[in-house]
Amino acid sequence: MLLPPDVEIMTIGDELLYGQVVDTNSAWMGQELGRIGLRVRQITSVSDRADEIVTALDLARTRARVVLITGGLGPTKDDLTKHVLARYFHTELALHEPSLRDVEQIFARFNRPMLEVNRQQAFLPKSCTPLRNPVGTAPGMWFDEGGTVFVSMPGVPFEMKRIMQDSVLPRLQEYFQVPPIEHAVLQTVGQGESFLAAHIAEWENQLPANMKLAYLPYLGGVRLRLTASDDGQPDLRQRLEAQLPPLRALLGPYLYAEGEVSLAAAVGRMLQERGLTIGTAESCTGGYIAHKLTSEAGSSAYFLGSVIAYHNDVKMRQLGVQAETLAQFGTVSEETVRQMAEGARRQLGVDVAVATSGIAGPGGGSEEKPVGTFWLAYADAHQTVARKISFDRGRQLNIEYVTTQALNLVRLSLPVVPQSQRTEV
Amino acid sequence: MLLPPDVEIMTIGDELLYGQVVDTNSAWMGQELGRIGLRVRQITSVSDRADEIVTALDLARTRARVVLITGGLGPTKDDLTKHVLARYFHTELALHEPSLRDVEQIFARFNRPMLEVNRQQAFLPKSCTPLRNPVGTAPGMWFDEGGTVFVSMPGVPFEMKRIMQDSVLPRLQEYFQVPPIEHAVLQTVGQGESFLAAHIAEWENQLPANMKLAYLPYLGGVRLRLTASDDGQPDLRQRLEAQLPPLRALLGPYLYAEGEVSLAAAVGRMLQERGLTIGTAESCTGGYIAHKLTSEAGSSAYFLGSVIAYHNDVKMRQLGVQAETLAQFGTVSEETVRQMAEGARRQLGVDVAVATSGIAGPGGGSEEKPVGTFWLAYADAHQTVARKISFDRGRQLNIEYVTTQALNLVRLSLPVVPQSQRTEV
Repeated sequence: MLLPPDVEIMTIGDELLYGQVVDTNSAWMGQELGRIGLRVRQITSVSDRADEIVTALDLARTRARVVLITGGLGPTKDDLTKHVLARYFHTELALHEPSLRDVEQIFARFNRPMLEVNRQQAFLPKSCTPLRNPVGTAPGMWFDEGGTVFVSMPGVPFEMKRIMQDSVLPRLQEYFQVPPIEHAVLQTVGQGESFLAAHIAEWENQLPANMKLAYLPYLGGVRLRLTASDDGQPDLRQRLEAQLPPLRALLGPYLYAEGEVSLAAAVGRMLQERGLTIGTAESCTGGYIAHKLTSEAGSSAYFLGSVIAYHNDVKMRQLGVQAETLAQFGTVSEETVRQMAEGARRQLGVDVAVATSGIAGPGGGSEEKPVGTFWLAYADAHQTVARKISFDRGRQLNIEYVTTQALNLVRLSLPVVPQSQRTEV
Repeated sequence: MLLPPDVEIMTIGDELLYGQVVDTNSAWMGQELGRIGLRVRQITSVSDRADEIVTALDLARTRARVVLITGGLGPTKDDLTKHVLARYFHTELALHEPSLRDVEQIFARFNRPMLEVNRQQAFLPKSCTPLRNPVGTAPGMWFDEGGTVFVSMPGVPFEMKRIMQDSVLPRLQEYFQVPPIEHAVLQTVGQGESFLAAHIAEWENQLPANMKLAYLPYLGGVRLRLTASDDGQPDLRQRLEAQLPPLRALLGPYLYAEGEVSLAAAVGRMLQERGLTIGTAESCTGGYIAHKLTSEAGSSAYFLGSVIAYHNDVKMRQLGVQAETLAQFGTVSEETVRQMAEGARRQLGVDVAVATSGIAGPGGGSEEKPVGTFWLAYADAHQTVARKISFDRGRQLNIEYVTTQALNLVRLSLPVVPQSQRTEV
């Protein structure tokens, strides 16, 4: 069995080290490489200094047989990757006619004058195989150096992605006949990493040596990723799948979806499956639940609207919360959120409503109701359910956490779809 | 003058290499380190394998005198940074009582049973100085190894940030007696990096050698950070400040605040200064403007509420938009957003309202009104102002961009405060 080659991703640019730009390229590349069964062994971000790039290249080739380089191919003078590579591989730059024609065409298309710096972009190291860049002026470069592959691409995300998809990924698959790898992602909500780890320890311990579970926590839940690496045996995907039923059973109500699905999208699917519409009545969450729901494309099919009721006048006027309720039980109370949820159903004309009221902080707390006290309510045609939460990690995280809990309350409270009406999603 | 030490950021976790998580920690750390005058020389992301972590540590100490490690400190068994570090530094784990009490308190506060795996998190390498983590169960660890500092922190962003701010940054400043560095941050909105750079080029070119301007773009604007490094001369702060008046004049209406102030907070300040309340009427932004406004502590002083009106019924019922207007001009039109903003003032009882309607995509576009068509309106007691925007970079970015534009519309449309009533903020 041939071992698949390790990959190193090298991103070049001071802007990454200064933190002016978040490197999203590497994650995208990692996913795409994983899909074809190549493992990223390391991601290295270095500055625009030639000596530091050379040192990084020297080290990368000791670790990996594929080095994918992004950045430093622009026309400005601080972009020097190409010159460094030409020197590093003991070659020189020469005009590459097809690349020049591509650059010329791009300028013609946008009706802009081509500058000398842009013409320079068609000068490439003689020893490389140029990789076409149909969406930008800097071509990619493929170097085969004694069985180690170096590829240089622009740092602009959509240019890099295009060159990866058109040229780099297919070439890598062909060059190294790579063995398969399989993943399954299970999305959970409502429990932390430690609880889940203890809860599924027995299942995890029985996993075969080529399978590994990763815990990817977020505020309010954990994504679980099971990975199966090639062990020379057939049916890797089936063997991975075979591990899942007992895990699903153990996760029970915490499992909200499989694959890359957000909680808001999962709730949206459930609403569509049931033919129900939703609205929100938010005090402490200030519109964040509505934002999460409407972040999903196509949400207008089930999300109709919300009332964000920060002030009590808005709670009374727009949601029909009674003045006596507010006076007797207070804004942050079970009674108030119940009336908010029920009022939202009526006023917004929705089937399902979720309401929040609480003290997100840092001010506004009291002895009886400290910062971090939250009430949630869910209402549909058949029931109203309320839940109290105590959570305080600062205003931003409180809002985020309570929003996740509110969406989860909807998920757990929606009516069950009769078996006969169920469709597979 | 002592040279400040180089820093290497090392992020640990298969999830980064597989691309399941985008590394936002490194950019944040790079910015914070830059603020205290430390340069990040390299960012290295490695897997959860012990041997690869050790190799990376060996190399990092050849490049940098500060190695900041994140990730791999959770309670589950794939998190092994702590064990690797204990072995690497020839020490062993021992129970650290104060950390145990912190962990216990966190579980007590949330009324959850503490598990053995959580107790294990209070076992720390004997040779380290534990760094308190007030927001999570894994403490940070500070190792001083012959003048090279290694710090290990959890990968969860809010835990890492808290430990950096509370402990790591102040300790680094003290340990390396980093020479003074001064910053001024000017927040702008409404123009991109290229425009601003051209607009202020002359001013930038006359800066003394020890001062440097950084452009930190975000969607809809640019943060400008002017940094003055130590040049052995006195009054560094005063000399920095002396550069600002001409820059402020050049930036004019694009400058919305100085220092670390969000646009929503700046709008909040302006409302308070004028004794005005605000509400929103949102269609395409789906509550994101309300979320931005209510993310600011103390916003209940001026934010009263919102109507999120996705469905036209909600626009009519809750905001009083007329059926004929919707029929004649459509949901995405100047007429509709004007009525939404004016309706929100009436219905929510607010002084100022901002409204949005548009096509965030990916669906819903037409020949006449393609995806990326947005209308905004601002209304107060004296005027209603509307503005059209064309912008399409995908649903998420569209929502974010339009929200920034809406807040900026409020900022630019609010009545001027009479000179006599002005207070310095």
